[in-house]
Amino acid sequence: MIRYPNGNIFNSSLTPQKTTIKNEVNYGSRGMTLEYVINLANEYYLNTNTAVIHKKPTPINIVNVAYPNRAAAKITEAYFSKASTTDYNGIYQGYYLDFDAKETKNKTALPLSNFHQHQIDHLNAILQQGGIGFILVRFIIQDEIYVYPANQLITFWQAQFNGGRKSIPYDNIKRIGYRVSYGINPTVPYLSAVKNLITATNK
Amino acid sequence: MIRYPNGNIFNSSLTPQKTTIKNEVNYGSRGMTLEYVINLANEYYLNTNTAVIHKKPTPINIVNVAYPNRAAAKITEAYFSKASTTDYNGIYQGYYLDFDAKETKNKTALPLSNFHQHQIDHLNAILQQGGIGFILVRFIIQDEIYVYPANQLITFWQAQFNGGRKSIPYDNIKRIGYRVSYGINPTVPYLSAVKNLITATNK
Repeated sequence: MIRYPNGNIFNSSLTPQKTTIKNEVNYGSRGMTLEYVINLANEYYLNTNTAVIHKKPTPINIVNVAYPNRAAAKITEAYFSKASTTDYNGIYQGYYLDFDAKETKNKTALPLSNFHQHQIDHLNAILQQGGIGFILVRFIIQDEIYVYPANQLITFWQAQFNGGRKSIPYDNIKRIGYRVSYGINPTVPYLSAVKNLITATNK
Repeated sequence: MIRYPNGNIFNSSLTPQKTTIKNEVNYGSRGMTLEYVINLANEYYLNTNTAVIHKKPTPINIVNVAYPNRAAAKITEAYFSKASTTDYNGIYQGYYLDFDAKETKNKTALPLSNFHQHQIDHLNAILQQGGIGFILVRFIIQDEIYVYPANQLITFWQAQFNGGRKSIPYDNIKRIGYRVSYGINPTVPYLSAVKNLITATNK
């Protein structure tokens, strides 16, 4: 199993790593990584013609490639590079969706250190184009997942530079976000919560 | 400079490889790769708040990663994997856009061998969700670029399995597609042609 320096599991696209990730799965929703259950949900949504949402491949800077005879090109030196956008985007009934997924072991707040300026700028640009931008946040200790609107995230992000707090309180996410209930198939039917966000956005 | 086995230049994301690709650029539009000019256009569209469109990073299967002391994680063995979607997607004034870019030295037709079943399925799913799917085709000899609707591509793709031809005629692309005129900034203002496609789609 391959991990990033931050401990996340590497998954360049949905299908090829499935067997690798399966080793991670315990029984029930606890023990599953957020990325894994989102990928499962996306697969379900794709197969049922509900939505087309994919995780973007991880951006990598390639330094060296070898071309062994009669074999596929082999990358022999490369480094992980920082993403300039969010991890997920796609389309749901005509709506452009764009989001990132974050897990935290912090019980009372989601630290803003989970985000980069680039991602905030990206989500802001998406909102300006009429897209549906949000984050999927999982509080690991409570085992609760929320769809939290990007405009709220942006407000907290900007406030931190004017003496505001460096995190979004759990209570705020619980109050303003849309709770994702666990299901059987998919395990994390997050589009039900996104639907509520879309309805609220269009009001 | 790093090349794929098919001769294309590797570009995991827009910014980091810019200097690498610049070596490719001659004067005028001839000599620029299609990918390069699309990236320039996307940068322009982003900076002018016109649209948010990105090329997805190239999907890679990572086999081995080394963690040298005090240094960034170094990927020491990885392979290029086949993309299950198209290369570009994003949002333009509320519309979800999804497309691939293809160049051909063939003067009379675009060979269907430029596409994979996965990409066709993906474009089909996008159309079903109400997205704007298309391909950007450049005929290198004529030095002409067209926005060609995904539903037309899908029709030709399916027909080939029922004895149809293995390529889309240049004449058909010229007649049904939307020509992209060259400009100064951006060099390839393809959204003007996409706008016409959107208008026709909504009629």
